[in-house]
Order: sequence, then structure tokens, then C-alpha cells
Amino acid sequence: MPDDHRPTAPLAPDFAPHVSDVPFAQTAADGDWLDLVWQDGLTWRVYGMFLRENEVIPGIISPITRERELEIDAMPKTATLAAANIIGGDLAVTWDDGATSLISGAWLRDMAKGLWRPEAHLPDMTPWTTGDLTEPPSFDGPAFLSGAMGEPLTALWRYGLARLRGLPTDQGTVQRVAEAIGTVRNSNFGFLFSVETKPDPDSNAYRAVPLDAHTDLATRELQPGFQLLHCRQNTATGGESTMVDGFAVAEAIRADDPDAYQALTTLNWVFTNRHRDSDYRWSGPIIETNAAGGPFEIRNTGFLRFFPDMPDADIPRAYAALRRFTELCRSPAYRMATPFAPGDLVIFDNRRVLHGRASFDPQSGVRQLEGCYLDRDEVASRLRILARGLT
Amino acid sequence: MPDDHRPTAPLAPDFAPHVSDVPFAQTAADGDWLDLVWQDGLTWRVYGMFLRENEVIPGIISPITRERELEIDAMPKTATLAAANIIGGDLAVTWDDGATSLISGAWLRDMAKGLWRPEAHLPDMTPWTTGDLTEPPSFDGPAFLSGAMGEPLTALWRYGLARLRGLPTDQGTVQRVAEAIGTVRNSNFGFLFSVETKPDPDSNAYRAVPLDAHTDLATRELQPGFQLLHCRQNTATGGESTMVDGFAVAEAIRADDPDAYQALTTLNWVFTNRHRDSDYRWSGPIIETNAAGGPFEIRNTGFLRFFPDMPDADIPRAYAALRRFTELCRSPAYRMATPFAPGDLVIFDNRRVLHGRASFDPQSGVRQLEGCYLDRDEVASRLRILARGLT
Repeated sequence: MPDDHRPTAPLAPDFAPHVSDVPFAQTAADGDWLDLVWQDGLTWRVYGMFLRENEVIPGIISPITRERELEIDAMPKTATLAAANIIGGDLAVTWDDGATSLISGAWLRDMAKGLWRPEAHLPDMTPWTTGDLTEPPSFDGPAFLSGAMGEPLTALWRYGLARLRGLPTDQGTVQRVAEAIGTVRNSNFGFLFSVETKPDPDSNAYRAVPLDAHTDLATRELQPGFQLLHCRQNTATGGESTMVDGFAVAEAIRADDPDAYQALTTLNWVFTNRHRDSDYRWSGPIIETNAAGGPFEIRNTGFLRFFPDMPDADIPRAYAALRRFTELCRSPAYRMATPFAPGDLVIFDNRRVLHGRASFDPQSGVRQLEGCYLDRDEVASRLRILARGLT
Repeated sequence: MPDDHRPTAPLAPDFAPHVSDVPFAQTAADGDWLDLVWQDGLTWRVYGMFLRENEVIPGIISPITRERELEIDAMPKTATLAAANIIGGDLAVTWDDGATSLISGAWLRDMAKGLWRPEAHLPDMTPWTTGDLTEPPSFDGPAFLSGAMGEPLTALWRYGLARLRGLPTDQGTVQRVAEAIGTVRNSNFGFLFSVETKPDPDSNAYRAVPLDAHTDLATRELQPGFQLLHCRQNTATGGESTMVDGFAVAEAIRADDPDAYQALTTLNWVFTNRHRDSDYRWSGPIIETNAAGGPFEIRNTGFLRFFPDMPDADIPRAYAALRRFTELCRSPAYRMATPFAPGDLVIFDNRRVLHGRASFDPQSGVRQLEGCYLDRDEVASRLRILARGLT
């Protein structure tokens, strides 16, 4: 790796803009580690190998793709520092084998601030009841399509739902909104799906019956992260959209009835779909927990729930805990009900906010929704990209 | 629910064919439970509520969609049996509140055999080295497209890879093969992607450089389950396809070096992509384990691996364990290398089999692959559907 291949200013191993706001105060090599101190007191202790394998030069990290070219087993076994100096705001390291690395100081500072973490640019998820929210946080649809996505997506991540209003009602609008955010998730119901009554329905969703609060595609290993539903026409009587924050329900049960919470978070149910040409099955708990024991994901579709996948002795309490969860989902304290106006588009976290609808009278008029899915990855990616312009 | 709504023969709450091969010997109500015994000695102890909420009649399970119409909180709190009888090979239950249920005997027998379980129709995943397999298990491509999918998909699930040969080389062939199995998974690289050298590449995959063994989309919460790569043209020198069974590598490390296995299965790394308009990030271990402690999933893309997401004290051993894993992936004992002939299509479990390629000389000819993804759900569903014709 001759020096003449090096860019004059060191690049970062990503495409985020990195601007150094505070200079280094000190740098101290300590064997295989490096201690960095900035003038505002921020510190970072970095492992030498991490620095060495993240230098952006041909042969290590490609300046073109910013992807690594050299695998770990082609690197020296240890990266021990002989010297470390700040040159023009960047870090120059000499290794004990004589090699040198030049690393962007601005990038190091953003790393030290933790901006590399997956959750760095995502708001906290805040549980809500109908005492907190009586309708979805609402935003201007055309403005969203013109790029004003920051506030709506922040509300969406925080509350698990948001509504765009005043959108055109043509077919494919839901795809335009979804693709402004990221890549649409496909399913056996189609890349886009139209929710209307169908003569030979392959799901209760395509009938006029009420749908209790549920998550979609509980029969898959990864339920879709977000669902978008766009109202194209609605002249039917009934059919209000209902939304329940499953995290709020989970936290209420966790506080009031720890035994039921334990049953909901540790006992698995098998969910199966009921199609002629597909047979999706997944076994999981109603509430998946995060490292802190709180809710991370809800999996509950009453119309696809099949078998308690647990020892016989646990089955009665599993049914009782599920009844409790379902009762709370039906309670007005948790269940928001809002009518769908043409041009409305609701986005919600399908792994958190259970959705449903009241029954409607298909003789009274037409109710036509178009929908699609986006994984959580896509919304998180868009929030991080938006943050690049802000930080 | 008046009796005149009932079908004359009870339906199953799914669309699988259920044929009773052995009649009941005995049925005994025991409070909220029912004991079933067949004449070949098969037994099943069933919870009453499960029977009651799975009767296929309008209002409980829809005979049209076979999805449930009645949520658990609308059912009686207990389902206690007053009587249970076999009538014409089916089960007739009278509940203590006077209601009755009629349940398909053939379906009950398949349930008792465990055919409802998610893993019921899937072969075991068998780890392999290049001592076991020197090339992918290979099958006739046109026959696959005509429906001969059982053997190839069984080999695919068992070994994590299979090859179809003699396919046409036109664009979109990979989509025809994928959609014969299930629903294609979309990504930011496109619904279908073309692997060839590109002038302004957004990934090392689109250059002529070698690619070490890796999984695709390690930056997503759920890595794609299967990848399909179809060779449309190959006149370039080099560019052999390499495949490594990550489960075999994981099991070898588990046996030889339990400390390294512990590091690989419990210490998380952050993987990030390096695009200008997307910022996917995920933190997870290199090896995700199943309930038995064995490998369930490999997540390792050297060119997207970013930060050790762990306490400083663990970082040196995490790097050392990863080096060991990478060395084994490069060893000929684990790494299969096969040339790509036009018309070949390789399918592999992207969460198990790490793929790569040797470098090639883009001046020597054209190397053009077309690819797409399918989640594990899709292949599992197809195997279960195929089994409906066999059992």
C-alpha cells in the first residue's frame, strides 16, 4: 500500500458528513489501545486493531465503496501502537511493525459521541393510551412527498403511528409514500394490496366482518415492521380504523399482573396461515421482550392463532393471560377508533400497534384501502439519513 | 349459532387434506381436558378450549377462509366437557353450558401426530465439509420449473445449498425459479439484482475484487433466508463461486475452542452499510444459537462489519475469535469452489452458507449473474405444501 495512493485528507469509512467541532486535547498510545481526549472533555479508548482495519485506503477500506477489502485474517494479529500524533486535526498512528495509518479526526469525534450506534438517531418509543392520544399524530401528505419527512417519521417511531392527510386518492399513492422512505416489503398478498370485499376471500380482511386488534403476518419469522394503509374511497357506513398500542397494554399487564406478563412473554403459540397454496407457520410468544424485560414486539393475530406450543401444564394460564391481553386491547382506554377519509394514509408499527376495524355495511357504499409494508430497518435508515442533514 | 349452519361433515381449520388412516379406540372427557386414543396406540390429551375455538362453523372459524371469527375474550371462560363421543369417525362434544362442537376426526389424528408443528415437514439441517460435498447437490433446472421441486428443496434445506443446471440464460429466469417457490424478498439493491462490474459501484460485489465468505444484508434485522444466483454469461477468467457451511465451521469451533465459540455467540458486532442514501445498521453476534446452543444463524460480512458492540475488556477476544472463524472459512476443508456455467443457478441459505468469489479479470470476458432473495418462510411453506401431496 504505497503512500501515493492515499487521499490528502483522510476519508471516513462511511458517507456521513463528519465535521470536527472541538479539537483534540491529547492522544496517548497504551500498547494495543489508544486514549483520545478532546478539549471539551470527551474521551474515547479505542482498540488499535479497530483503527487499523478502518483506515480508508485501497486495500483496507475502499475509498470508492467505503467497504472493507481486507479480511481480519489478512491483518497482523495485533495492532500495537508505537506512536500516535495529531496532525492537522487528524490522527496519525505508527504501528510497531513500521506501518502507519491516518484517520479522520472528525470521524473519530462522531464515533466517540456514539453516533455509530444503531439507536443513535432514533427517538424513544413512548407508550400511549387514549388518554394521551385520541387520534394519530397527523401531518400534511403532499408536504411529506416533497421531503418534509422528519417530524412525521419521528412521531411514527415514537408513538408507533402517524397519519398523512390530503393525499391524492389514485392507485399507487401508497407506494409513492412508502418508497419516499425506503424499500417496500413484499408478501404473498402482493407488493401492494387492496383491502376491499372480495367474492372468494383468502383472508377475513377481505370481508365486511369486524377485525379485532391484530398484527399482520404473525405467521412469519419477522412480522412486517410498518404497515401503510391509504384510503382511496370510503362511502360505506362503519369500518372505523382501530389502533391499540400493544406496548402500553403490555406495560399495564406487566405492572398489574406479573404472572400473566410472564405467560405472555415466555409461552409460545403457533400461528399458521390458511391458504391453499401457502403454509406459513411460526411459533413465538405474544410479547417478545428486550434486554430490559420490556416489550420489543407484539405477535398476536386472533384469526391466525393456532396451537399453544408449550407443556400441557401451562396451557390454561396461557389462555387466561391471552384473554386478559385481548380484553385490554378491546377497552376504550387503549383502543383508538378513527374514521378513514379519502386521502388519509395511516402508517403504524405493525410489531407494536395492533390494528383492526369495525364491521361495515358493504351495501351502504364502497370502502377501498390500498396498503403495503416497510420493515423497521427502512424507517430507521431514513431517520438516520435525515439526521445527517441535522447534526 | 344454529345447527342448520353446520356443514354435514366437519371441516378442518386449515386447507391441508386430512385422511383418517386409523380409527379412534377411545375418548374420555376429564373436566377441561379430553383424552383421545387411536387404535394404533397414538394418544393425545387436548385442552377443551382449544377444541371449542377451532370448530369450523360460521362465528367461530369461518368455513370460507378457515380463519377465526371469534376472539378469545368472546368465548366462555372455560370449556368444560359434559360428554364426548365418536360419531362416524368424528368427535362430538357437549359442553357443560349445553353447547356442542363437532370436530373432524382425521384432522385430530394429524394434530396428534404433530403435523401442525412448524418443523414437521422440514428435513434436519446437516452440516457439511468439502469431505462430504465437493459441489452443490445438482438438479435439472427445467424439471424444477415444471414442478419437480421436492428433491431439490429437500437438499437445499438439508445442506443449505442446491444447484439447478441447464436453465435458459435470459433475464428474469431467476425470478421464475424464485416465484415457483414463493414470494421474492425486495431490498435496496432491487427486486432482482445483476452482479457485474459497474463504473460507480455501491458495493464491492459490483467490482472485480475477490469477495471473502460472507452473508448478505448483515445490516438488517433479518438477513435474507435464501439467495439465488443465476449465471447468464461467463467468459471471464476466474470468478469461481465459493461456498462455506457456516454451521460446520461453528460446530468445529464449538468442539475445539469453547471460549471462541462463546465469544462468537454472545458478543455483538455492529454491521453498517455504506451508501449515500441509506444507513442500515444492526448489532448482533456472529453466530446466533438455537435453544440447544447450536448454530441457528451466521451473521458475518467482513466488508460491512464495523464496531465491536461490547465492553472494552471483551474486544481483544472478540477479534481473536473472529479471526479463527475467518481462517476456517478460508480453509479448503470448508470452502467449496466451483465454476459458474451459463444456465447454472445456485440457491443457498444466506443465514448459514457463506458465499464468496475468487477475483476475476474483467478484461478477459464477461461475468454476469442475476440474483434475488427469498426468506426462509417461503422455502419452508413450499416444502409443507409439497408434503400435502405426500402424506
